[in-house]
Amino acid sequence: MFIHNAWYIAAEPDELLSRPIVSRTLLGKRVAVYRGASGQAIALEDSCPHRRAPLSLGTVQGDGVRCGYHGAEFGSDGRCIRVPGQDAVPRAVVPTYPVIERHGYIWVWLGDPDLADGGASIPDGFWVSGDPAWIGGYGRMESIKADFKLINDNLFDITHAQFVHPESFGGEEVQFYRKARPGSDYIDREMSFEVGERSIRFRTHAAALGDEGGPLWRSMLAQSRGLEEWNDPIDYRMEVIWWAPCYTSFHIIVRPSGEPDAPPVEIYNLHAAVPESEGSSHYFYRSVRNYGDASMNSAFIDAVKFVFNQDKPILEGQQAVLGDRDLLETHPISFAGDMLPLQGRRILERMMATELTRG
Amino acid sequence: MFIHNAWYIAAEPDELLSRPIVSRTLLGKRVAVYRGASGQAIALEDSCPHRRAPLSLGTVQGDGVRCGYHGAEFGSDGRCIRVPGQDAVPRAVVPTYPVIERHGYIWVWLGDPDLADGGASIPDGFWVSGDPAWIGGYGRMESIKADFKLINDNLFDITHAQFVHPESFGGEEVQFYRKARPGSDYIDREMSFEVGERSIRFRTHAAALGDEGGPLWRSMLAQSRGLEEWNDPIDYRMEVIWWAPCYTSFHIIVRPSGEPDAPPVEIYNLHAAVPESEGSSHYFYRSVRNYGDASMNSAFIDAVKFVFNQDKPILEGQQAVLGDRDLLETHPISFAGDMLPLQGRRILERMMATELTRG
Amino acid sequence: MFIHNAWYIAAEPDELLSRPIVSRTLLGKRVAVYRGASGQAIALEDSCPHRRAPLSLGTVQGDGVRCGYHGAEFGSDGRCIRVPGQDAVPRAVVPTYPVIERHGYIWVWLGDPDLADGGASIPDGFWVSGDPAWIGGYGRMESIKADFKLINDNLFDITHAQFVHPESFGGEEVQFYRKARPGSDYIDREMSFEVGERSIRFRTHAAALGDEGGPLWRSMLAQSRGLEEWNDPIDYRMEVIWWAPCYTSFHIIVRPSGEPDAPPVEIYNLHAAVPESEGSSHYFYRSVRNYGDASMNSAFIDAVKFVFNQDKPILEGQQAVLGDRDLLETHPISFAGDMLPLQGRRILERMMATELTRG
Repeated sequence: MFIHNAWYIAAEPDELLSRPIVSRTLLGKRVAVYRGASGQAIALEDSCPHRRAPLSLGTVQGDGVRCGYHGAEFGSDGRCIRVPGQDAVPRAVVPTYPVIERHGYIWVWLGDPDLADGGASIPDGFWVSGDPAWIGGYGRMESIKADFKLINDNLFDITHAQFVHPESFGGEEVQFYRKARPGSDYIDREMSFEVGERSIRFRTHAAALGDEGGPLWRSMLAQSRGLEEWNDPIDYRMEVIWWAPCYTSFHIIVRPSGEPDAPPVEIYNLHAAVPESEGSSHYFYRSVRNYGDASMNSAFIDAVKFVFNQDKPILEGQQAVLGDRDLLETHPISFAGDMLPLQGRRILERMMATELTRG
Repeated sequence: MFIHNAWYIAAEPDELLSRPIVSRTLLGKRVAVYRGASGQAIALEDSCPHRRAPLSLGTVQGDGVRCGYHGAEFGSDGRCIRVPGQDAVPRAVVPTYPVIERHGYIWVWLGDPDLADGGASIPDGFWVSGDPAWIGGYGRMESIKADFKLINDNLFDITHAQFVHPESFGGEEVQFYRKARPGSDYIDREMSFEVGERSIRFRTHAAALGDEGGPLWRSMLAQSRGLEEWNDPIDYRMEVIWWAPCYTSFHIIVRPSGEPDAPPVEIYNLHAAVPESEGSSHYFYRSVRNYGDASMNSAFIDAVKFVFNQDKPILEGQQAVLGDRDLLETHPISFAGDMLPLQGRRILERMMATELTRG
Repeated sequence: MFIHNAWYIAAEPDELLSRPIVSRTLLGKRVAVYRGASGQAIALEDSCPHRRAPLSLGTVQGDGVRCGYHGAEFGSDGRCIRVPGQDAVPRAVVPTYPVIERHGYIWVWLGDPDLADGGASIPDGFWVSGDPAWIGGYGRMESIKADFKLINDNLFDITHAQFVHPESFGGEEVQFYRKARPGSDYIDREMSFEVGERSIRFRTHAAALGDEGGPLWRSMLAQSRGLEEWNDPIDYRMEVIWWAPCYTSFHIIVRPSGEPDAPPVEIYNLHAAVPESEGSSHYFYRSVRNYGDASMNSAFIDAVKFVFNQDKPILEGQQAVLGDRDLLETHPISFAGDMLPLQGRRILERMMATELTRG
């Protein structure tokens, strides 16, 4: 079960530098993505209506595409415009998909085109600033044999950090997240969240964190000041936003404790878990920060990838246990920390139900 | 859906030099092929009726086979003739298949043995001359994850040459094929075809071809005369014959233009796309010519293999798009150049319908 | 179709030295096996009831296990005892399986726990002596893509030795096994067997065997006396016991012929073919003998592995021919030598029928 009426990241623009047409399976459909001569990104079904050769094996012609098998040409609207060696042009149309290039990604809409919203539902916060003060890097798309909802759960659930990512996000101290309740206040941390119609926002901050601050957050502060390490207490704030169906942003703000006016060290980690098929996903990620220079980019991408590779065996392990069942079909028990991921799944269920009733 | 009542190439005789028994899956059936002591080639179900061990793991005994598991021996007619360690010989018979060795291949008949025609339907033209003036070489069998009908379409469709094989068969000039109509005459080329009950023949010739002649045809002329290259105009004739279900011969005759009495340079390229399963095939090929010596054989085989490896990603891409659907179930549009492949598919459909009505 | 109400070898204890928790699929179920702090071996479903992460990715905590994803802890009885970061402990239970450590293996019971018999049905003879006079070694578990019943058939059928293992067990001479009948007497060998409710025992002995003794039996005698080879006649006895569902012991006793009072050279080869899924099995094996020292162990294990690797292509070939059919569904013919394996299959069928009628 997929949600079709949504914008999905299909490709990173860089992918189109090394090959003219990218073939990507999204929601079980084979999609060809390319950039036309006009600079426009275009997406269409990766299947020539003539003999079903993948159009991704063809070449870009202007804003259209030419099949690599018999040379049939299709315009950017998918209409056949030329068949080599014959005068008649058949009334053939390759299904095309609305495309928007935004926030450094190529997004496609695979559902009912009449419901495509001109990109209004692409999350504004899934963001790349044009401001040169913000420096960042892409991660290469990764393949993962896990349902995108399991990855959503994972990204939006910080209670696993203690067990899966202690070197990055710290140990027992992050357990306070588990106490999250609307307006709850745990020790000196304050947590809050808002559930929207298609998004969930989650905020926390903590003052004067000792070792609890998380090695990665600490190292950000050290890095930004050119120090080897940072051992003094830190203040930090984190805002996590998840947008249905599969986009999550982590915004982390760190300051030395007791320096409320110090310029904050900030990082955005952006994650997308795009459904490839039932049980497998494409994982796109990015890290953007407000300090340092481009030479540090690869270290940040490596850090995100390190964390991803800790999650990967668990996510793929869950999928292997589940087989073709959805997690919730197995009647799992839930913990307090699952409240937000479960809210997220409820949003997805409503979206799916809307698609089904619409027919 | 397979056509069972037909002769299929099961193996190249050379394969039986390196191993005593070849196991090959044909039309979804596992078949063991071997050469008996009398020299006779024999084919039977690759499954011992005793414990279902593959007989291809056994050994040849006279004209029969001995299972490698418990040593049960079966004659060339499949009947059990000995069980080691016991006097009683069970009434067990391994299904055998009619075999004919002809044209340098081992052919088997997997359908109703009463309909086997003694080889009458093995195409005479799928040919190897005993005349030493004809020199050639085998290609090793290749595996390809594509339905045999897609390979038929490809072999019998020369309009793709411009896009897939420009280094071999030339570029835009081969578009005139697309205008082929019964008795049509295009510029100075003449084309004609005949559709038989189980075969299709297609002829073309062209005089005074400039660059249009195709790099491979040109190089044949150069080779045969010991020259580095041939740049003058050429005359060429081509005859393509396809025999159902899966055999195609290309006969190409090249002369220097204006030398109608010069001894022609000729080549036969023979292709077979034998169904392994729904969606995969064995591809056998061969190249025979009337000039040069055996030292040139590998270059010719390499040229055919080069061309095959250009087709392979397209054919496997089509199959990946199609999944378990037949091409025609996807309601493809057809071009003028598809006329002959479609005629071929109609012949196959008639043959399948005949098998089905026969029960 | 599996027999659930039986003890199955799940792991070798050594496996738990290199990793804390072993994940093993048995009868199609994913099982986590570990050793608790008390030394007790524990087996439970390899699926956290919280989010279905494999518990085998977690850590051992006392006699319980902590999920590697969110740190939920479960006692050795499978009950959830702690969820980090929340006070409430959900009423969640991971299914656990009775475990017994015996004969150098960890055994689990996957069926109805009320029918577990405290280990009474673990075969006593699947044996490791505590007596230091008995020296032996484990083979590492091997994976094989074959139904466990095919492996049973193979192990319990010595008539294939002549064809598959001539270097180890000899050639034509072992055909006399085929004449086995209750109380039969063939030449100077005496053979007998007994079929029990859940086991089959098979005995043979032979005096003054020449070359017929089998290269491996002969080499045992040479080895035990520090000789290069042994060429004189030998006397040997063999007792094979198969215990349902999948355990086979070979006990071989060799003496120089004419020295009835000489201390015998003895070896036990123990084999277990534990069902992983329909069509695949785990193969555990061991070799124990009454002579030599530990430095010879690896040579013995290598000998068993050599023999196994001769059987493997045949067993996997049978499975490939059978696909998802059981051997007996294909109406195979049987030979005299199949009598005992068929008796074994009948025992298994009765056990399966009992499970089904019990509901």
